[in-house]
Amino acid sequence: MTDRITVVKIGGNVIDDPAALKRFVAEFAALPGAKILVHGGGKVATRLAGKLELEVRMVEGRRITDKGMLDVVTMVYAGLLNKQIVAALQAAGCNAMGLSGADGNAVTARRRSPEPIDYGFVGDIERVDAGLLRRLFEGGITPVFSAIMHDGRGTLLNCNADSVASAVALGAAEVAPTELVFCFEKAGVLRNADDETSLIPRITAESYAELKASGVVSRGMIPKIENALKAVDNGVRRVVIKHAANLSNDLGTAIER
Amino acid sequence: MTDRITVVKIGGNVIDDPAALKRFVAEFAALPGAKILVHGGGKVATRLAGKLELEVRMVEGRRITDKGMLDVVTMVYAGLLNKQIVAALQAAGCNAMGLSGADGNAVTARRRSPEPIDYGFVGDIERVDAGLLRRLFEGGITPVFSAIMHDGRGTLLNCNADSVASAVALGAAEVAPTELVFCFEKAGVLRNADDETSLIPRITAESYAELKASGVVSRGMIPKIENALKAVDNGVRRVVIKHAANLSNDLGTAIER
Repeated sequence: MTDRITVVKIGGNVIDDPAALKRFVAEFAALPGAKILVHGGGKVATRLAGKLELEVRMVEGRRITDKGMLDVVTMVYAGLLNKQIVAALQAAGCNAMGLSGADGNAVTARRRSPEPIDYGFVGDIERVDAGLLRRLFEGGITPVFSAIMHDGRGTLLNCNADSVASAVALGAAEVAPTELVFCFEKAGVLRNADDETSLIPRITAESYAELKASGVVSRGMIPKIENALKAVDNGVRRVVIKHAANLSNDLGTAIER
Repeated sequence: MTDRITVVKIGGNVIDDPAALKRFVAEFAALPGAKILVHGGGKVATRLAGKLELEVRMVEGRRITDKGMLDVVTMVYAGLLNKQIVAALQAAGCNAMGLSGADGNAVTARRRSPEPIDYGFVGDIERVDAGLLRRLFEGGITPVFSAIMHDGRGTLLNCNADSVASAVALGAAEVAPTELVFCFEKAGVLRNADDETSLIPRITAESYAELKASGVVSRGMIPKIENALKAVDNGVRRVVIKHAANLSNDLGTAIER
């Protein structure tokens, strides 16, 4: 059916820039083989919450998803952005299908414990239905996931889109060899954050230990790389961190076993 | 695979009433055989447009869907309501999957001509992919359609939910014998609009001609019945107009050839 799967995650740096999104859609549609797109939400939800005068509550730098904010992210992520992206992919010849975790019971999540901090309707991924992914691929469908999941008991939950991408890639790896690509605003992991030519082309658990010890890896990259190493440990063939504009070329940092 | 399909359409009278929606979800989930749900939007979109201070423009009693309003209905219909209904159905044991027309290229629409009145991003249904419906049924999936469709060239279009239901039922009829159920706020077609006991249990093209000539059928019911007669003429086994509370019993008006 398919001999390889590419899971691509895009965030606000692509979604908030119409020209970048248009180019991304064309390049993603042209990717060979089976593929899955996972998208974040960018600033659209924050703008809508502002217009609705919803109070944005932050605790320790993280947004609290109360009922009003859950409705906003469900509208923006699972509705507006997801359907705009799907319609654009269809126009580019890619038979995309937008999915929240509730759709086809694709992904279930567990509401995060209210102790020590109650983040509200925020969830952590529990299970991805690899059988559903397989059936969609067999039908020539490209799943497009927002980060809105459900708990299976009727409650929608806002999840971290990077975590959704990792979990979906692990599910896809049960179907065929899977590569996970995180698109962000830099060319990849850099030795010098201000110098795009200082790209590190390949990181393994061994080289990462050295990079971390020597302080080369910036604080923001640490969770990304550690999640990527966990994904390759658990069955994803490799994880690539790159700029969205480089989707169809080899530029980026590959994280491998 | 399946020997019969039931397509059910619900509108604002169910969606705007949490108790009615909860009961409907339980009864729809319990319906035997393959099934499809098509939902309208109720008052949620109008309330959101009001909060966002979007100007609601009406021409000849019909709302103009400009870009701002298209974003609102995409957020509310394809996002919030669709995912809330899908999550509730999942909790009730029904493996629902929410779809706009763009998802899997399920339904394409054509933007309505701007002459004589430009309704904006409003579409009329062009094509339903019966093969996709068949594959979803084979996977045990219950499609849940909002009325947001696409033109295949990247533009989302707001469609009439009754028309979506009729078109989807005609698509389903290519897969297996299909019944179409319109849930509304009355028990069915009544001889006397104020008397629920004056229900007309069965209407055919012949009996409809008499009912219309004698002025028994109210003006609001004429397009509903004529659309239903067209659907049964084109392959839907029968159309039933009934109150949502009667989904699991026989009460209602059956429109048959």
